[in-house]
Parts: sequence; structure tokens; C-alpha cells
Amino acid sequence: MQETINRIRKFRTDRDWDQFHTPANLSKAISIEAGELLENFLWDEENYNREHVLEELADVMVYCVHMADCLGVDIAQIINSKMDKNEKKYPVEKAKGSSKKYTEL
Amino acid sequence: MQETINRIRKFRTDRDWDQFHTPANLSKAISIEAGELLENFLWDEENYNREHVLEELADVMVYCVHMADCLGVDIAQIINSKMDKNEKKYPVEKAKGSSKKYTEL
Amino acid sequence: MQETINRIRKFRTDRDWDQFHTPANLSKAISIEAGELLENFLWDEENYNREHVLEELADVMVYCVHMADCLGVDIAQIINSKMDKNEKKYPVEKAKGSSKKYTEL
Amino acid sequence: MQETINRIRKFRTDRDWDQFHTPANLSKAISIEAGELLENFLWDEENYNREHVLEELADVMVYCVHMADCLGVDIAQIINSKMDKNEKKYPVEKAKGSSKKYTEL
Repeated sequence: MQETINRIRKFRTDRDWDQFHTPANLSKAISIEAGELLENFLWDEENYNREHVLEELADVMVYCVHMADCLGVDIAQIINSKMDKNEKKYPVEKAKGSSKKYTEL
Repeated sequence: MQETINRIRKFRTDRDWDQFHTPANLSKAISIEAGELLENFLWDEENYNREHVLEELADVMVYCVHMADCLGVDIAQIINSKMDKNEKKYPVEKAKGSSKKYTEL
Repeated sequence: MQETINRIRKFRTDRDWDQFHTPANLSKAISIEAGELLENFLWDEENYNREHVLEELADVMVYCVHMADCLGVDIAQIINSKMDKNEKKYPVEKAKGSSKKYTEL
Repeated sequence: MQETINRIRKFRTDRDWDQFHTPANLSKAISIEAGELLENFLWDEENYNREHVLEELADVMVYCVHMADCLGVDIAQIINSKMDKNEKKYPVEKAKGSSKKYTEL
């Protein structure tokens, strides 16, 4: 994974794109790519184009890597911090088998 | 990173949430979280709440990990496949310093 | 405006598309179109393509009309109900000149 | 409908919010609200909270009205221009009963 992250970084710096990568712009990019991912499931949730789905999912993740870089944070670390919170918000005994939001559990 | 991915998986299976994790549902979740991330930059792109931004970014990535699992793919691999395409779509000599879409380069 | 709404309805029924128009599908469509609208402002918020922006804004609104139809509600009425709430959440004396969310006012 | 649009305008000018209403900011707002609308259908597309859905749909439309104002355009007119295009992109004889995108028809 580290090699892949390095490749994403090199792609950006080779093209001198750091100048466009503000947190706000990257959050727009993530939203836009998320919309393109969702489009694959618009009218039919079962028969999707798998290749397109994988490409759009990759696009979302690439911009997430750029955003983590732009904010100067380690991806594993911010995910772990969030998982600490999620584990408290959704205790196994309450959340098991339920799709309810934590505010309704 | 692998440890973090394992933690995300255990979180899901402990709560018996695989049943809700279809590709379509997860792509909705990614879009929703991307919107929450974007909300931090709505009226003011400079003075954002850093802690909230990191949490929402983590949320997007956690759902991306779930989606990769749901589709049975390796994250590094699908990112690398997409980077192969991006490198062709945006050759350094054309794309350097430009924020234009590849269709306009 | 009523004539325009009727035209949107006729477009849908002429194509026998009511079958695809569930509230969930239409909310996905609105999100996807909103992402396409946002794409116009991705790297540069000032120099956007006005024609594209107007088209994508129209797309969002067309799907909103479809969704109101699908839910059997009158657009003016649901907007007015929401404006009743907004006026209470954002009293003029507190909200004037401020971009803060009501939870922070 | 015109009365409702006037109410939305008065709400904005009473609070001196025109200063925050750039096309880029409003397109972010539309995306964020679209995500909140979508959240109602996240894990279960059938059993949604109708009241919440109507409120979020109204939010999307209110921001669309603000955006049309900000761009100085008439809503019915830009929808009609887009419907002209849609009618050509999706001719009845080809599109009837099909959920395919025009590029695949």
C-alpha cells in the first residue's frame, strides 16, 4: 500500500498539481467522484458495470490519499481514531444486526 | 495499514452488518459521507474545523474499505489499475501545471 | 412554472419511466446531478462554464420535480413548510450577516 | 410558486446572506443537501421517514432557487432549455420503457 501511496504522490508532484490541492478543492473532488460511483447503481442496483465501479471507487480513494497528504495526516492513524469513536457509538450488543443510526439505537 | 483494514472488517462482522453491505448501499454511504466532508468547507473554505474534516475523511475511507471487501478486490490493485489509466490520460508534458480535464488538454 | 412541470411529467409518462421513479432512485439521481453541477467549480470557482452550470442546475431541478410527483406532494407547499422552520431556526436578529449553522448561532 | 420564490428571496436578503451566495458555494450546498436527502434511503429504500424526506427535498430546491437568483436566470426558462435537449437525447421510440443512458440507447 505504501508503494501505491508513493505512486499517487509522484503522479501529483510530476504534474505540479499541489497548487490545486486545497482541502476544500479535494473535498469537492471526493464528492464528485462519489457521485460518479453512485451513477453505476442509479436505476438498477444489481446489474452494474463492475469495471466502471472499480474505477470510480479507485478515484474516490486516490483523492482521499491526496487529501490526507494535503492535511499532513497519516491515513491509518485518522481511520483508527475514527474507529475508536465508532466502536463506542455502536456497541456490539446494541448494534448487532441492526442498520439503525447510533442516535436511534 | 493491513491492521487497520482488519480492524474495519472485524468491526463489521462483529455487528453482523455484512447483510447491509451491498455495492449499491455502500456507494450511497460514500456519497453521503463525502457530502458531510464537503459541509466543512461550505461558506468558508479557509477556516474549517480540522478535527471534523479528519473524521469525515476517515468515514469516507472506511466505507471505501467496506466496498472493496464487498466487491472482493484488493485496494492497492484497483488503485494501481486506475493510476495506469490516469498516467496515460494526463501525460506529464501536457498536464503539468494545468487543472484542465483530460478531455480539454 | 405549471406548464414547465406539466412538460416534465409528460416527458416521463411518454417514455413509460414511472416504473423507475422510486423515491430512493430519484434521490440518487439528485445526488449524481448535484455532483455534476459541482464539477463545474472544482479547481476554479470563478471561471466556470455558464452554459454547463445552467444545464446541470436544470437537471437537479427536473429530478426534484419528478421526486415531488413520486411522493405526491406539492412543491410550493413543502418549500413553505420548510421555510417556516428555517425562519425559526435562523431568526433575523441572530443570523443577519452570519454564515454560521443554526446549531452554532 | 412565485410567492414561494419571493419568500425565499426575502429570507435571504433579510439575513444579508447574498454575500455568501456565490455559484460555487451554492453548488456545494446543493450537493450537501442532496446527500442528506439520500441518507434517508441508505440501508432501507422502502421504509423511509417521509417527513424528513420532504424537508431535505425542500432544502435542495430552496438552494436551487438561490442559485438561479445568483446566476440571474429564470427557473422555468433554464428547465425548458434542458427539456429541449432531453427530448432530443431520449426520443420516445428509443427510450420508451428503458432506463439506459442516452449514450447506450
